[in-house]
Amino acid sequence: MDFVGNHILSVGQFDRSDVERIFQVADDMRPYAMRNRITRVLEGAIVSNMFFEPSTRTRVSFGSAFNLLGGEVRETTEVKASSLAKGESLYDTARVLSGYSDVIVMRHPEPHSVAEFAQASRVPVINGGDGPNEHPSQALLDLYTMRQEIAEQGRGVDGLSVALIGDLKYGRAVHSLCKLLGLFDDIRLHLISPPGLELPDDIVKAVQANGHEVHAFHELEPGIHGVDILYVTRTQEERFPSQAEADRYRGLFRLNQSIYTQHCEPNTVIMHPLPRDSREQAQELDDDLNTNPNLAIFRQTDNGVLVRMALFALVLDVVGEVDNHAQPVTWYTAKRHLSAKDRGVR
Amino acid sequence: MDFVGNHILSVGQFDRSDVERIFQVADDMRPYAMRNRITRVLEGAIVSNMFFEPSTRTRVSFGSAFNLLGGEVRETTEVKASSLAKGESLYDTARVLSGYSDVIVMRHPEPHSVAEFAQASRVPVINGGDGPNEHPSQALLDLYTMRQEIAEQGRGVDGLSVALIGDLKYGRAVHSLCKLLGLFDDIRLHLISPPGLELPDDIVKAVQANGHEVHAFHELEPGIHGVDILYVTRTQEERFPSQAEADRYRGLFRLNQSIYTQHCEPNTVIMHPLPRDSREQAQELDDDLNTNPNLAIFRQTDNGVLVRMALFALVLDVVGEVDNHAQPVTWYTAKRHLSAKDRGVR
Amino acid sequence: MDFVGNHILSVGQFDRSDVERIFQVADDMRPYAMRNRITRVLEGAIVSNMFFEPSTRTRVSFGSAFNLLGGEVRETTEVKASSLAKGESLYDTARVLSGYSDVIVMRHPEPHSVAEFAQASRVPVINGGDGPNEHPSQALLDLYTMRQEIAEQGRGVDGLSVALIGDLKYGRAVHSLCKLLGLFDDIRLHLISPPGLELPDDIVKAVQANGHEVHAFHELEPGIHGVDILYVTRTQEERFPSQAEADRYRGLFRLNQSIYTQHCEPNTVIMHPLPRDSREQAQELDDDLNTNPNLAIFRQTDNGVLVRMALFALVLDVVGEVDNHAQPVTWYTAKRHLSAKDRGVR
Repeated sequence: MDFVGNHILSVGQFDRSDVERIFQVADDMRPYAMRNRITRVLEGAIVSNMFFEPSTRTRVSFGSAFNLLGGEVRETTEVKASSLAKGESLYDTARVLSGYSDVIVMRHPEPHSVAEFAQASRVPVINGGDGPNEHPSQALLDLYTMRQEIAEQGRGVDGLSVALIGDLKYGRAVHSLCKLLGLFDDIRLHLISPPGLELPDDIVKAVQANGHEVHAFHELEPGIHGVDILYVTRTQEERFPSQAEADRYRGLFRLNQSIYTQHCEPNTVIMHPLPRDSREQAQELDDDLNTNPNLAIFRQTDNGVLVRMALFALVLDVVGEVDNHAQPVTWYTAKRHLSAKDRGVR
Repeated sequence: MDFVGNHILSVGQFDRSDVERIFQVADDMRPYAMRNRITRVLEGAIVSNMFFEPSTRTRVSFGSAFNLLGGEVRETTEVKASSLAKGESLYDTARVLSGYSDVIVMRHPEPHSVAEFAQASRVPVINGGDGPNEHPSQALLDLYTMRQEIAEQGRGVDGLSVALIGDLKYGRAVHSLCKLLGLFDDIRLHLISPPGLELPDDIVKAVQANGHEVHAFHELEPGIHGVDILYVTRTQEERFPSQAEADRYRGLFRLNQSIYTQHCEPNTVIMHPLPRDSREQAQELDDDLNTNPNLAIFRQTDNGVLVRMALFALVLDVVGEVDNHAQPVTWYTAKRHLSAKDRGVR
Repeated sequence: MDFVGNHILSVGQFDRSDVERIFQVADDMRPYAMRNRITRVLEGAIVSNMFFEPSTRTRVSFGSAFNLLGGEVRETTEVKASSLAKGESLYDTARVLSGYSDVIVMRHPEPHSVAEFAQASRVPVINGGDGPNEHPSQALLDLYTMRQEIAEQGRGVDGLSVALIGDLKYGRAVHSLCKLLGLFDDIRLHLISPPGLELPDDIVKAVQANGHEVHAFHELEPGIHGVDILYVTRTQEERFPSQAEADRYRGLFRLNQSIYTQHCEPNTVIMHPLPRDSREQAQELDDDLNTNPNLAIFRQTDNGVLVRMALFALVLDVVGEVDNHAQPVTWYTAKRHLSAKDRGVR
């Protein structure tokens, strides 16, 4: 696809070369995110960060990514504080807001609302999550992390085996990730979910149609054998018809260090789209894994900044200009981004 | 008036030359808002955007205007999250906050609260709306838009005929607009409201005292004949004593393409202070007008950025400096501001 | 202590030379806060302002301080809008957020939560208040103000006499201030509180153990005689077990101009951590003191910006670089910071 001036609404927009292009640009962003130097390439540019649904991680990540490129962030965080509450249509909101900024990031609880908004917008819109539907930057950062983790074993995404664990029915991160993985070759998926929370059939079929291997499990232990990546998810309680319904599934699958040692390879990577639910009833990913060097969950969120910087740079057509606006860093910078070598051993 | 270092609290501060000065500066801001170039004239300056009442449009518009001039925005969006909730006086809040920024924009639900706040502030305060009382930047952008739209017909504001439609009793935008229009010559106003929501008598009399023509209507169709501008408003539900009271008036006047074609001139301009209420019960301005090239409602909000940039530039005394801090734009910029030629035909 | 790259969590971290170092750097920040010039030393740096409890003053003050140094602010203002509400641990939140910024300011209602957060953070964390526990930047700005006010009388902090007035039990500002004052020599404290809201015993004993003089009072008038500083506080209603309990103490001590004239020295300084409660039932500091030139409460909040700039500059190791990135101010600047000479006479 041509990124310049276009919306990023769905992983369905991308072919393999698009994904690889995004990842290559994300790689180029690393020195800026790691504070080896700064860039002012977007000095004077404005992003409108519209979050009509609570979010800390995604919102701050997008905002920081834009700041790291030198731009300014204008933010709206509550649907109640917005004109939508006074009966304004998405069309109107989009027409108006697109006069205030150079690019818009939008999260909204209604599926397809962001696409509807984008149609009326006069500037590029990036989907920051539209309810249970899509969250393309999450899927991209997940795959980018898999690519980075497996590269340390001298391999690429082709031939990767991934166990997807937990609520595979409502987890939009999982759905989008499956579509992205499907663009590569010889993927093997282990789908591990409780009965009733299986991955929707159309997604399974699409993956299989692309020639990939899919195995379904209702138990944790048999499913996590012999895979490269464990991708654990929390129960998406807010998507369930009722809290009682959601409670039935909480805490069913819990990965901890002892299960990991017993059933996984020594370098099986552990991922999670976060937030992980650390309350006693849930704990899908036990805290005792925090010192496991293969726990990649915070490398995922770090990578999220890179991927979002890449999306902004591509959409706003400054990829080739980033280095031309570089400046030295003059302040103390912590080693924020754990390298492959020191991961987990802080 | 002398703008430098002064508060902008009410349209009553302005004479005709003040308004023309603001509009002239707003014109000068256009290349920056349209992204032909950027300016860093306010680099290092801080605006405090204090919104003690929900607002997306006005808040983001002021913030973006300040960013477009190169400055930084600090924002407060909830009265509950503020010290006012702990019994702090407006005097104290103003004394404190004016130590944190170079200029303050304030919206507050209580009439005259912003003026009270401004009295204690040590930096210039711009009224972003004080309940049913004043919203001067809205009135300015409305008149600025009328001036721009009518200029395409080779005319000026003098001699303009405007139909004001809807809730003329509680609509502060309408009240302030009437005062501004009154500064010009030979204005003709058609006041179209349901019985009970008429324009307050003192405003009518003030307009007439300045030698302008005023005609009142209780029906839509007869009132919209032969005017240059239709200025449609929504029912200001939040100002009514009760929801039931407000509901009586919803949806009484609805302008759509068929009524427009039947009763208006081919180039009658359609305006609205927004948000327009697009819920089925309201629809004071039908969506089928969205392709009408005379629908100026999004040019209004675009112009709001220009007018707010102008107010900041005037109050902070940088009008002559803006161009001296200009820089080229290095990123992709959408055609955000519809020109006269291509309006409505995107 | 070594400030560079370290957390600022508690006044207990500081010895006397640390406090004096912070104050010296704060002095150096004055020309920038007063807008004699600007500095871009932190251009490209990002602070994450995490406020999991309502705050306007502290939040905006930290944000403006960072902007004044040239940096960018990313903000989160609601615990409900955050991942903590989905069961995320402070550990996870800290690991994630510290990948998004160069330094974090955090306020949280739970005592010691900020320290727990800091332990997992990969960037320096500054405590913006952790419930009833600590609020180190407030204590620093209070002491900095005392130092500045008493300097006009040709004296230093050593030998200072301070009356602490009001809710000394729950007021964290008072507790931290006592610890800081204790680092100096020959302090005399008058503790004036209603029975039941006395300063906790361990704090009294710590002050006495350092060789300082402590006198307790249950009445206002006898306690405010012969001291240099009156430090008045509001009742910390939100910390009481019940509102009824808090109401018993409201409005017990009220300082006004007539009591001041009768019982204080002509140059006794009046301070308050703010917000002061100006509701009729409270009024611990009457509005009729607003014209009293010794009322230092707004000089306190102005100084808060200086102290917070100093903390950022020290932690991020740019103290020596600030002046190297100075630029002239090109816009209108109000005389925001009242000088010693014109205080109170605006």
